[in-house]
Amino acid sequence: MGDRLTIERDGDIATISLDNPDKMNALTLSMWRELGKAMEALSADDEIRCVILRGAGTRAFAAGADISEFAAQRSNREQARSYADVTTAAMQAIEQCRHPVIAMIHGVCVGGGLEIASLCDIRICGESSRFGAPVGQLGLTMSYAELGALIRLAGRPVAMEIVLEGRIFNAHDAYAKGLVSRVVADDAVEEESIATARRIARSAPLVARWHKHAAARLTQSPALTAAEIESAFDCFDTEDFRIGAEAFNAKQKPVFKGK
Amino acid sequence: MGDRLTIERDGDIATISLDNPDKMNALTLSMWRELGKAMEALSADDEIRCVILRGAGTRAFAAGADISEFAAQRSNREQARSYADVTTAAMQAIEQCRHPVIAMIHGVCVGGGLEIASLCDIRICGESSRFGAPVGQLGLTMSYAELGALIRLAGRPVAMEIVLEGRIFNAHDAYAKGLVSRVVADDAVEEESIATARRIARSAPLVARWHKHAAARLTQSPALTAAEIESAFDCFDTEDFRIGAEAFNAKQKPVFKGK
Amino acid sequence: MGDRLTIERDGDIATISLDNPDKMNALTLSMWRELGKAMEALSADDEIRCVILRGAGTRAFAAGADISEFAAQRSNREQARSYADVTTAAMQAIEQCRHPVIAMIHGVCVGGGLEIASLCDIRICGESSRFGAPVGQLGLTMSYAELGALIRLAGRPVAMEIVLEGRIFNAHDAYAKGLVSRVVADDAVEEESIATARRIARSAPLVARWHKHAAARLTQSPALTAAEIESAFDCFDTEDFRIGAEAFNAKQKPVFKGK
Repeated sequence: MGDRLTIERDGDIATISLDNPDKMNALTLSMWRELGKAMEALSADDEIRCVILRGAGTRAFAAGADISEFAAQRSNREQARSYADVTTAAMQAIEQCRHPVIAMIHGVCVGGGLEIASLCDIRICGESSRFGAPVGQLGLTMSYAELGALIRLAGRPVAMEIVLEGRIFNAHDAYAKGLVSRVVADDAVEEESIATARRIARSAPLVARWHKHAAARLTQSPALTAAEIESAFDCFDTEDFRIGAEAFNAKQKPVFKGK
Repeated sequence: MGDRLTIERDGDIATISLDNPDKMNALTLSMWRELGKAMEALSADDEIRCVILRGAGTRAFAAGADISEFAAQRSNREQARSYADVTTAAMQAIEQCRHPVIAMIHGVCVGGGLEIASLCDIRICGESSRFGAPVGQLGLTMSYAELGALIRLAGRPVAMEIVLEGRIFNAHDAYAKGLVSRVVADDAVEEESIATARRIARSAPLVARWHKHAAARLTQSPALTAAEIESAFDCFDTEDFRIGAEAFNAKQKPVFKGK
Repeated sequence: MGDRLTIERDGDIATISLDNPDKMNALTLSMWRELGKAMEALSADDEIRCVILRGAGTRAFAAGADISEFAAQRSNREQARSYADVTTAAMQAIEQCRHPVIAMIHGVCVGGGLEIASLCDIRICGESSRFGAPVGQLGLTMSYAELGALIRLAGRPVAMEIVLEGRIFNAHDAYAKGLVSRVVADDAVEEESIATARRIARSAPLVARWHKHAAARLTQSPALTAAEIESAFDCFDTEDFRIGAEAFNAKQKPVFKGK
């Protein structure tokens, strides 16, 4: 029951902390739901000039989705669709937030954590941060929206290293590959992120909102058919998805069958 | 009255110098107009195989638009639209120049200077060069065309650091982030740029023109509505734009109101 | 007659070697044809989980197309179109391969070699590798598909350095510019590539296929007209193309006329 979001305000800067201390801030469905609502509320608030997204503590930004919930909440196509309704709404709320959003990244930033970070405008991490998305070992796919955000962030070849090979990048490589905007010393992540938020908050806010909106307009993904969007759920009907989930829970290496 | 363009020819290579020595080569409206005409004339000239764009001297490529002109020439939406007719024509002329264009960058390359450089095919700078666009502190927005050029050059995350945070990059970071093609010693910028122009001029010119045209075709921005394009002028009707301009002239920090 | 392809299987990993030992693995038309067929056959094979593309030996991935064939097989528009039918089919087969494809790059990777590598999902090279495409010195253009693949890989500015300036990048610069995914010691290229293929092969294969397909969908080039696609053959009717070919055969520097 330690999973929650905390929201703090310091003048025109709001900070949302992903807080699930026993699980490296992995996101439960309840946290995804709260995250969407919090971002929508902050986006509508004209007093806000910058939002910081962070993990509670300094061990992790977020270690992804809380996989222990999958058996009960994401075990087949129908459940996965309901689950995605919540996560997609949260991710859209981050992306469409009218105010600039900074990802303050301590430590681990993988899976859903990387997806959240990829939707922020600026990413600041520490030297010991790690980035990746082990979806191929879980037997599940990203959605088009998630993969699209990763490609927009760092390009298709980097996205392919992450999703095909399951590669985990250190901070230095993540910077070289465009996954993060800036790498600082681990104990400077908070200070640098707040200083960046203040620089943004001192800029003309209507100008910032217009630039953010225009940049999204200029880089929007091609329109997809309903069938294409639905195809991202095909994995949940496969034997490999069950193999991946069971191996994860048993802390074993999965042996996939390709069906 | 020191603001002007100079154009030199050395065989099949033409060099345009942005020349406003008292203002770090900031572009006056008159210089923007001359720049557009010069690029159009050179583009039409079949004897040309490469164009170099540079700032006069070695202190600056260009420090942006000459902001001292804004009070008389860019103080409201109507004026801004006329001003943009000239700057947009100049930028289109650079982008659509049939011949390869090199930005030879000494020192400061900010605001309109960065926009011009982003439309060239290759950018060569010195180790002490600096890059940015402090539009957020002036209370004005880039146009879709300007923001689009920056995004095509270095990606949306880098563009966001520049326009939202007002970040100034040194040459090393500009290279890592894709803002420049090459960094050389300050006193080698001219030599390397000319050598590059000669390599280009020795290549098959019809082939170069086709590649340049095809690359533009493959990376064109999505079509925008007239209302979207017009929305870039909304900032000129805001109180924040006046606050930004007054603060700039008074050399003070602006305090924006978000309206 | 040393030009050929060899295909080896090791469980669910297939390795295709481009093999033309006297010409740094330059691709003859016959090799292009075999490459297309081999990739199509492997793509259709559900037992395969990863394909490695490499050059035979360790001196070169591929030094481009075998230019000595151009006089007989690619000397005018009509021949160039037939030639392109074969090379385009091969490149499409690589790009559309359902399984992840790794380019294992030893040494020289230029021209058609770079084009092949740019269509793979992950590129691993050694410290002494070299990358470029001296098309401007040959008086011929890439096709839209080839240029598009290069732009998708490393962005338009990098593509312009390559095609306009004829720049050859070393491994370090190629990594900084996004042309390769990873640089390792020359004698570790094979080991690292195979280890990467094994990591991919251990991941869920249907998931990998979906991600690859979705990434291609999200980054597809704009639709081109038949006339635009045909315009890439205009160069073969120019005097400069003949000048480039003659200079190459005579090992002299071409002097182009722009017609």
